[in-house]
Amino acid sequence: MRPKIYLFGDSITEESFSPGGWGSSLAHHFARTADVVLRGYSGYNTRWALKVKERVFPEAESGDAPVAVTVFFGANDAVIPDRCGGFQHVPLDEYKQNLLDIIAFLKKQWPSTRIILITPPPIDEAARLLDPYINNLSGLPERTNESAGRYAKQCLAAAAECGVPAIDLWTKMQQSPGWQKACLRDGLHLTENGNKVVFEEVIGQLREGGISLETLPADLPLWAEIDPNDPLKCFEK
Amino acid sequence: MRPKIYLFGDSITEESFSPGGWGSSLAHHFARTADVVLRGYSGYNTRWALKVKERVFPEAESGDAPVAVTVFFGANDAVIPDRCGGFQHVPLDEYKQNLLDIIAFLKKQWPSTRIILITPPPIDEAARLLDPYINNLSGLPERTNESAGRYAKQCLAAAAECGVPAIDLWTKMQQSPGWQKACLRDGLHLTENGNKVVFEEVIGQLREGGISLETLPADLPLWAEIDPNDPLKCFEK
Repeated sequence: MRPKIYLFGDSITEESFSPGGWGSSLAHHFARTADVVLRGYSGYNTRWALKVKERVFPEAESGDAPVAVTVFFGANDAVIPDRCGGFQHVPLDEYKQNLLDIIAFLKKQWPSTRIILITPPPIDEAARLLDPYINNLSGLPERTNESAGRYAKQCLAAAAECGVPAIDLWTKMQQSPGWQKACLRDGLHLTENGNKVVFEEVIGQLREGGISLETLPADLPLWAEIDPNDPLKCFEK
Repeated sequence: MRPKIYLFGDSITEESFSPGGWGSSLAHHFARTADVVLRGYSGYNTRWALKVKERVFPEAESGDAPVAVTVFFGANDAVIPDRCGGFQHVPLDEYKQNLLDIIAFLKKQWPSTRIILITPPPIDEAARLLDPYINNLSGLPERTNESAGRYAKQCLAAAAECGVPAIDLWTKMQQSPGWQKACLRDGLHLTENGNKVVFEEVIGQLREGGISLETLPADLPLWAEIDPNDPLKCFEK
């Protein structure tokens, strides 16, 4: 049975199998070694994630521990409360506690699974004002980069408190020149470049946890292992 | 528990999660409704697939019937026997029988699963001669379009004999003007356009079997179903 890697998060996870998405890149990378399982829920914050965690990860499947789970929330929690989309907002302290509760739940279910937290990405506020999906008449962005940064910091704090690794996407992404347009499509969701950043960071954190193409056994003989003079031999094992 | 769709096949399946690939397009399409599980094995023909079918679909997991399985072999079976890569060749009659055996195996394990056969794609012979991965000194392509067509026909015959649907990719793809370069990257594997053809055909065959976004329940409340005035209400169910 192949090991599983779950991707748990909001729309940045749900759309991660779109062309060039970080989820499909992971699935392609681990094409013969692991199943990448999509559990992304557009619009969700940690409060809602906490409500549904038992349905996302049913106890009935708990015997089949994944090798890793990415937990990628915060972009919606960080919405400014009194602006457009404010009902998605979760206060900063609650956000951190919700992450701690999600980690505790996963750790209890699967003690040896590598849990990787991912902070929300930075926000390009100018682009948010142009989002055609938001009926925003206030002239103020519903998300700010400063707010996303505060949530990112609490995400890192939660990870440190639990001793799980975290990807500081908010900081990492802002190190790319012109990250606003290079990494973000609409000021929030990822371009192909932005997806590459997430993919590389996740691959790196998996590798740190001993999860890589070098350590995971390939499912069935690889092309290079098949003897042209006696191809069936390797299937008899 | 989300329904599963298995993709079982050779390299055209294994690489289906590459950017723009038909597998990742399926996973993206069914992001909230079904898990698309990759079981592609580069270089494999039906003879080898038959040898490993119990390991690809273990009996231990047979209780968890997928809603659909695509079976996509033939491109390697159809290699010309006395040319480069000839050890992948499987005689035409055996190819058909192997497909029948694979279908019988899947039907026994999962009587209600929709099995979708896919014929090998057409071959652009001129491009095959340029494939840098093949040490082909003969000046003759190791695959021909005529051979792929004969295997495609037997694939359709096997499907008809078992009463399962089939996608005639060999014919379908040749209906695109300039299919040689538009649909094929190296005369055999798919371009983004070629991947689109497979994706559309698979979606169509799933729909014919009652498997679509309209019929599959979404996993957890969708964004549009969440009441901004009382977001938690929909999670209490």
